[in-house]
Amino acid sequence: MPGVRPVFYVSDGTGITAETIGHSLLTQFTQTRFVTERYSFVDSVERAAEIAPKIRAAAEEYGVRAVVINSCVDSVVSSALAESGALMLDVFAPFIEPLERELGEARERRIGQAHGLVNFETYHRRINAMNFALTHDDGAATDYAGADVILVAVSRAGKTPTCVYLALHYGIRAANYPLTEEDLEHDRLPPRLRPWRNKLFGLTIDPVRLQQIRQERRPNSRYAQFDTCKREVAAAEMMFRGEGIPTLSTTHTSIEEIASKVLTTLGIHREMF
Amino acid sequence: MPGVRPVFYVSDGTGITAETIGHSLLTQFTQTRFVTERYSFVDSVERAAEIAPKIRAAAEEYGVRAVVINSCVDSVVSSALAESGALMLDVFAPFIEPLERELGEARERRIGQAHGLVNFETYHRRINAMNFALTHDDGAATDYAGADVILVAVSRAGKTPTCVYLALHYGIRAANYPLTEEDLEHDRLPPRLRPWRNKLFGLTIDPVRLQQIRQERRPNSRYAQFDTCKREVAAAEMMFRGEGIPTLSTTHTSIEEIASKVLTTLGIHREMF
Repeated sequence: MPGVRPVFYVSDGTGITAETIGHSLLTQFTQTRFVTERYSFVDSVERAAEIAPKIRAAAEEYGVRAVVINSCVDSVVSSALAESGALMLDVFAPFIEPLERELGEARERRIGQAHGLVNFETYHRRINAMNFALTHDDGAATDYAGADVILVAVSRAGKTPTCVYLALHYGIRAANYPLTEEDLEHDRLPPRLRPWRNKLFGLTIDPVRLQQIRQERRPNSRYAQFDTCKREVAAAEMMFRGEGIPTLSTTHTSIEEIASKVLTTLGIHREMF
Repeated sequence: MPGVRPVFYVSDGTGITAETIGHSLLTQFTQTRFVTERYSFVDSVERAAEIAPKIRAAAEEYGVRAVVINSCVDSVVSSALAESGALMLDVFAPFIEPLERELGEARERRIGQAHGLVNFETYHRRINAMNFALTHDDGAATDYAGADVILVAVSRAGKTPTCVYLALHYGIRAANYPLTEEDLEHDRLPPRLRPWRNKLFGLTIDPVRLQQIRQERRPNSRYAQFDTCKREVAAAEMMFRGEGIPTLSTTHTSIEEIASKVLTTLGIHREMF
């Protein structure tokens, strides 16, 4: 029976940085079960003083010290949180001093900067990429001249979430093209994809898994039969191989990982939002 | 003229954790201009040894030491990267020892766990939330019984990206409803929204900004005229106030921050993906 440990993500902004690094740290500890809570926009001592007793109460409830993963830039706020008695992990503290020394400048303690500031130009790029992903989803529009990437796969292999993720987080204009039964009768790329060979990335998936996903969507349809899934996946994989299209299996791959591999493989460099 | 500093995000997985914390750190240094590059899936000494000379070359090009923000869990890989002579910032190292001591267990050094593992149940929740967001985008479907959140706003105020973000990162079933001119002729909520009052969240926006966004989308239309924008925004704000709908201006707010405030305001707690 693993121990249970309460963990609090506390931030003066959205808390995304604290939760991202916290989640990465906690996944490295497999013997403990973590119950997590998030407090965002904790930007005053008063707010911190409201939260500290809640953290203390959780520690009492579980009978163990709580862990606070904290990204508040104001040390007075952090001190008020520390009144809870929790193990305080400040996600910025260890890196600030070496960076200040290396860069020869002092950091500016502005609150919630990372995910709070809006630069209109990058906002536009992001929103336009999102609109592109939605209008070019599932082969709806096939004017691919403006696309950075075109994901190609059979239905339900993970194209849409990957395209949306690429748009939201990298400002990438990602279209996706569903291989139809007709497309799969030929070994060659569908004609409308041929001019864009260097933008293509194929997704594939274990037919057993595909069958589960399709079954949930359209129970007991021919579409969801295992034989259909197996035949479609085999035909798509043969097409990708024959045409030299880079391919990734999404069966055990998260959306983040698929997106990251698409960018690495196609040699696209964009900063993350 | 600010100094330019090359920064490398290096990871044995997607690099999302390294880039997220790195971005948060770098925004605190405003006197330096950073040029960044990402190396994902660096999971062997051989791969690290290929990259180290590129880091060294960038340092020579810019005439300053490079910074490496590193989330590789294998210290042999990190050592190979350190051959580059860069300032090495290991995003996990400072927190592992205090966590091991507190939890009474040693971490497991598995590679790329945070954004690599796929749990089918959470994957399903995420994908289903995404499908929900897309089918309930822009008032397309209005069966709101299954919605966790319904964002309400005039056209182009930021509803769609926020819904997609909520779906992707929190598995939230977020619908959005565009206030039409007809809706805005009345001070009261449109009838189809009234049963779902506790799921509603209003977005508003500076009419000047809205005009810019609409102008880009449909140049010189009535829809994009400043008067139209001003009138629609004022009517929407009056409706939100009169009906007691919580509201946020998206003018200077990032997608992450809007999403985070929606969750905080409506009291929805979900772990991030």
